[in-house]
Amino acid sequence: MSDDSARELGTALALKTDAQGLFTVVAVDADTEAVLMVAHMNRAALDRTIATRRATYWSRSRQKFWVKGEESGHEQEVREIWIDCDQDAIVLKVRQKGAACHNGYRSCFYRRLRWSAENPAAAVLEFAASPVVDPQQVYPSAKHRNVSP
Amino acid sequence: MSDDSARELGTALALKTDAQGLFTVVAVDADTEAVLMVAHMNRAALDRTIATRRATYWSRSRQKFWVKGEESGHEQEVREIWIDCDQDAIVLKVRQKGAACHNGYRSCFYRRLRWSAENPAAAVLEFAASPVVDPQQVYPSAKHRNVSP
Repeated sequence: MSDDSARELGTALALKTDAQGLFTVVAVDADTEAVLMVAHMNRAALDRTIATRRATYWSRSRQKFWVKGEESGHEQEVREIWIDCDQDAIVLKVRQKGAACHNGYRSCFYRRLRWSAENPAAAVLEFAASPVVDPQQVYPSAKHRNVSP
Repeated sequence: MSDDSARELGTALALKTDAQGLFTVVAVDADTEAVLMVAHMNRAALDRTIATRRATYWSRSRQKFWVKGEESGHEQEVREIWIDCDQDAIVLKVRQKGAACHNGYRSCFYRRLRWSAENPAAAVLEFAASPVVDPQQVYPSAKHRNVSP
């Protein structure tokens, strides 16, 4: 098999990373499959995730490991890890404690696009979920930044 | 509101793109929420998707628009579009015709990681799905490349 073919149809883990050594991670609820968040890992973060069964990402903005829930307590217990055909993206099936989103929503995907085919440029967002926790309560030690890691 | 706060808690579409003008797209089955694939779009690809209700990505390897299913017929009819807190990722809820994956699987995530906490470096992949179509039949005009766009 060629390298590409082995990567796509083989059983060896051969992650394809970007220029920063990262790949995309989609965390989904292990029961409902609902998408909770999209983030990034490098191989070391994946190894930590595997070893601890707690989702550990690489924060691009802070340039360090980011153990999900280390501040908020809203950790993700990893049940399964799936990988895509060309091995540049993984899906984590997790048990999410509390809220995945730092804004207090269960999922970071709490807004839906509303549009008309006639005028795509005028598309707007509508809130389609309610917060499950108060972010001010979850991050009491820090001024709530309203930006994701 | 600050720019970050408006992006996270407002109703205006204000996509945050990478250096190539791209953001991450997760396509999920509109009925089951199962993740089908991860790809990328730029704003123009999103506008085409909105206008046509057919998922249109930006192919990074080919550097052109990629209308999902244009060759295979396995198109994605877009039902809903959700956006995450910092607007650098979207979820498309789609009705997938046939197989999302060019390897013939319903989802590009057809392999699961198997590991032991003691030796994460020895993690291997196991196939956990069966193809729903024969890729040789789907892409008859081209030598099957075994690489994703």
